[in-house]
Amino acid sequence: MSAIRHALSVKREDDFAQWYQEVVSEAEMAEDSGVRGCMVIKPWGYGIWERIQRRMDDRIKAAGVQNCYFPLFIPLSYFAKEADHVEGFAKEMAVVTHHRLIAGEKGGLVPDPEAKLEEPLVVRPTSETVIGAAMARWVQSWRDLPLMVNQWANVVRWEMRTRMFLRTAEFLWQEGHTAHADRADAMIETLRALEMYRDFAETELAMPVMTGEKPENERFPGAVATYSIEAMMQDGKALQAGTSHYLGTGFAEAAGIQYQDREGGQQYAHTTSWGVSTRMIGGLIMTHGDDDGLRVPPMVAPHQIVILPMLRDTPEDDALLAYCEDLRRALAAQQACGEPVRVLLDKRPGKATQKRWAWVKKGVPLILEIGGRDAAGGMVSMLRRDRLWNEAAKANFVALAKDDFTARAAGELEDIQTSLYAEAAARRDANIAPIADFAALEAFFAEDQRYPGWAEVIWSRPSGDDLEAVVQRLKALKLTIRNTPLDGEAVTGSCVFTGQPGVERIYVARSY
Amino acid sequence: MSAIRHALSVKREDDFAQWYQEVVSEAEMAEDSGVRGCMVIKPWGYGIWERIQRRMDDRIKAAGVQNCYFPLFIPLSYFAKEADHVEGFAKEMAVVTHHRLIAGEKGGLVPDPEAKLEEPLVVRPTSETVIGAAMARWVQSWRDLPLMVNQWANVVRWEMRTRMFLRTAEFLWQEGHTAHADRADAMIETLRALEMYRDFAETELAMPVMTGEKPENERFPGAVATYSIEAMMQDGKALQAGTSHYLGTGFAEAAGIQYQDREGGQQYAHTTSWGVSTRMIGGLIMTHGDDDGLRVPPMVAPHQIVILPMLRDTPEDDALLAYCEDLRRALAAQQACGEPVRVLLDKRPGKATQKRWAWVKKGVPLILEIGGRDAAGGMVSMLRRDRLWNEAAKANFVALAKDDFTARAAGELEDIQTSLYAEAAARRDANIAPIADFAALEAFFAEDQRYPGWAEVIWSRPSGDDLEAVVQRLKALKLTIRNTPLDGEAVTGSCVFTGQPGVERIYVARSY
Repeated sequence: MSAIRHALSVKREDDFAQWYQEVVSEAEMAEDSGVRGCMVIKPWGYGIWERIQRRMDDRIKAAGVQNCYFPLFIPLSYFAKEADHVEGFAKEMAVVTHHRLIAGEKGGLVPDPEAKLEEPLVVRPTSETVIGAAMARWVQSWRDLPLMVNQWANVVRWEMRTRMFLRTAEFLWQEGHTAHADRADAMIETLRALEMYRDFAETELAMPVMTGEKPENERFPGAVATYSIEAMMQDGKALQAGTSHYLGTGFAEAAGIQYQDREGGQQYAHTTSWGVSTRMIGGLIMTHGDDDGLRVPPMVAPHQIVILPMLRDTPEDDALLAYCEDLRRALAAQQACGEPVRVLLDKRPGKATQKRWAWVKKGVPLILEIGGRDAAGGMVSMLRRDRLWNEAAKANFVALAKDDFTARAAGELEDIQTSLYAEAAARRDANIAPIADFAALEAFFAEDQRYPGWAEVIWSRPSGDDLEAVVQRLKALKLTIRNTPLDGEAVTGSCVFTGQPGVERIYVARSY
Repeated sequence: MSAIRHALSVKREDDFAQWYQEVVSEAEMAEDSGVRGCMVIKPWGYGIWERIQRRMDDRIKAAGVQNCYFPLFIPLSYFAKEADHVEGFAKEMAVVTHHRLIAGEKGGLVPDPEAKLEEPLVVRPTSETVIGAAMARWVQSWRDLPLMVNQWANVVRWEMRTRMFLRTAEFLWQEGHTAHADRADAMIETLRALEMYRDFAETELAMPVMTGEKPENERFPGAVATYSIEAMMQDGKALQAGTSHYLGTGFAEAAGIQYQDREGGQQYAHTTSWGVSTRMIGGLIMTHGDDDGLRVPPMVAPHQIVILPMLRDTPEDDALLAYCEDLRRALAAQQACGEPVRVLLDKRPGKATQKRWAWVKKGVPLILEIGGRDAAGGMVSMLRRDRLWNEAAKANFVALAKDDFTARAAGELEDIQTSLYAEAAARRDANIAPIADFAALEAFFAEDQRYPGWAEVIWSRPSGDDLEAVVQRLKALKLTIRNTPLDGEAVTGSCVFTGQPGVERIYVARSY
């Protein structure tokens, strides 16, 4: 084994942003497409997204939500009905104005002036308006409620500064939209979705998160309340990894989602929406990546185990491959994390060490290297990606009898899942500091290049101009309020911003 | 049981087009979205699409093709590189010209003139150009070939006349794109994809198809050869339900997909592309629907079995529901068509007969009605949707002991799948007529309101102007050439169009 300590050219502690880009590239997750702000998601990155989709979709369906598909395009008139909503999104939307091209006078193609749309269409940045129009057709009576739909779709927000997975002009997501008879029922659904996201992030992505309510200045445009899951990245910054919104009756009034109640009266429905996106993959990278590349939690790894035969281009290769194929079949018949084990026998030509490094960078949970002598002796050599490396690199490979490994493969995968979560949770917990006054907050975040983590502070929950003053003070420190925990824990102490009696805790952090 | 013979207001034989719209609506498959040419795919329709996706995706992955995701937007300059391609598509594309909206002078929102894109973006009608650009980055050496990728995505073609599922401005599809070292390898892949589609259509959709090559005038813009699967609808018209294209080196030359061969020379790759879309659902409706609505083949049915308890709002309902839940659990533990049985216990309030008709119209393969007496006696009452109705309607319900039904449920589902195929294949075979001369062809298609099926004729495979003359003669009869079978069967006889010696058979039909 080569003695390379780090497979990447940049370490996390030296330049986290550069390290992130290198992992995205070296793990072959995604690349720039040449189309402004849009990425190409490559097979390894898309394979992780497919795993996320499959497992999240199971949860969504289990909650009684039905998948549908709604149009990519939204007529301007739909969009303009909800004033706050359009104010929040109008600055960053792709607008379709023509439906045909013709040859231009200077060569090339230009939009055909004869084929100008009477009403321009917006490429959906989110679908409340167009789904609201459908709900208005579908909801007549209280018997039609709750109405719960979801779609897996692409959306476009014209971001000026983009970063792979974290902020791209086009991204993939799911958006759940529900309509309810009253506030109480809608709030239950809003919080159910939030809890689904928390459990998904922690269970499937092994990414600990804080659930809570966003402050009023960070609400989704048009929402009455916005809740989020917030994850701590390894640079101490916060990533909003999923949101759930209680929309009140505002969107129902704009779209006309009305129902006849049990007494025969006409009522507006209370709606919610909630979504997670390919951004989660950025969170996964910045939670679990190390200086050798990505580490993918087994539950969302496209391959959980890769078998690497040490091929030598000799006749003995046949016996080695037969041994590996036998092992592959035995592993594929096992169950881990409630599903069949996903195992790949990598028979491609190429040097074994190069292939090993490619899989280390991609973060496949378990790598099995098998040479001719292993095959002859009924052995495998196992590398656990979450434990790479210690000082004596070779010790990372554990020699095991083939049948012993087969019997414990599922246990190893489940242990990796648990270990990755424990490691991230310990780091997160060690990097949240309770801070009692504004001066201490300034001191905590004083060093500009490194982020110490999150501050947990007590505040008086100001609103309007008072909140805006707090937001501006934080902005000067490049900080934002992440969310207010929902645990309802009583607080004692005064607000770090206003000095008034504190009412709740909030997390304050730098963020993506 | 109500004695209604037909659940729809229109019969197929009276107005097939109207019948189709009514099935789409009454089976709650899709509806008009209010956005020009775009539909909302509702839960039952989308559930069928999810089944199609899942099973097609398994086949695509089994062939070694990797899923990726490429941008929605294509810069005009990419698109303009392949001359035939742009010629074929430029007339029907949505063009994004601005990235921001502002308040208009007359109120409302308008595209911000300050935010006009320097280069307009096209909403992808298909992705050869943008995927070609990625392939040009990914392919350097012969070792990188074949390169085989696929994406599940939405695409937009600005169709003037749209029909749900069959032709919509936005539709969902998968598009496979592959690059190969030479023509031979690319042709193998082109035909592999075609055969995958044939087998999928016949196995999963129970929809018999004819595979063959399209005539030169019907080729995909820029393709060297286009192959299709063609299905016969119940009105005798043909539906192109999937295509596979050998693109030669044209797209590789436009995008610069070059590789170094084993001798060190630079070569252009040979590329292919192939796709199926939500159009398949239109084909499924027009293949299997009857005068009571849709009949969904079990392999793609979101629910294969629906249990309908005859609830009476009395205390006895509890025992009935317990009995039904027990049955549901026993059925869900069975396997049919290689997967766990998908069974729904429909506990919603409402009249049992109304609920039954809703499921009949949706085409769920098996309906189980269970009343209090059935529950007490350990019985179920089974309705096979493919056999609805005979003269004595009540005879359609078969009374079975619960355990007997559980034991034979998988067999019933598999038999329904087979029966639907056999019924469609028999109809198709009975409605293809060999026709020997043009006068007979005219006579065969003379009646304008009803379509007798397809004509199988011999031709001399003219090209260029000679082909165009044939196309125009057929167009006068509202006919098109569907495809040339690939069976390579020798033909004897002369061309029905030119009188020259025939070289192959073609299918001629009216079409969607």
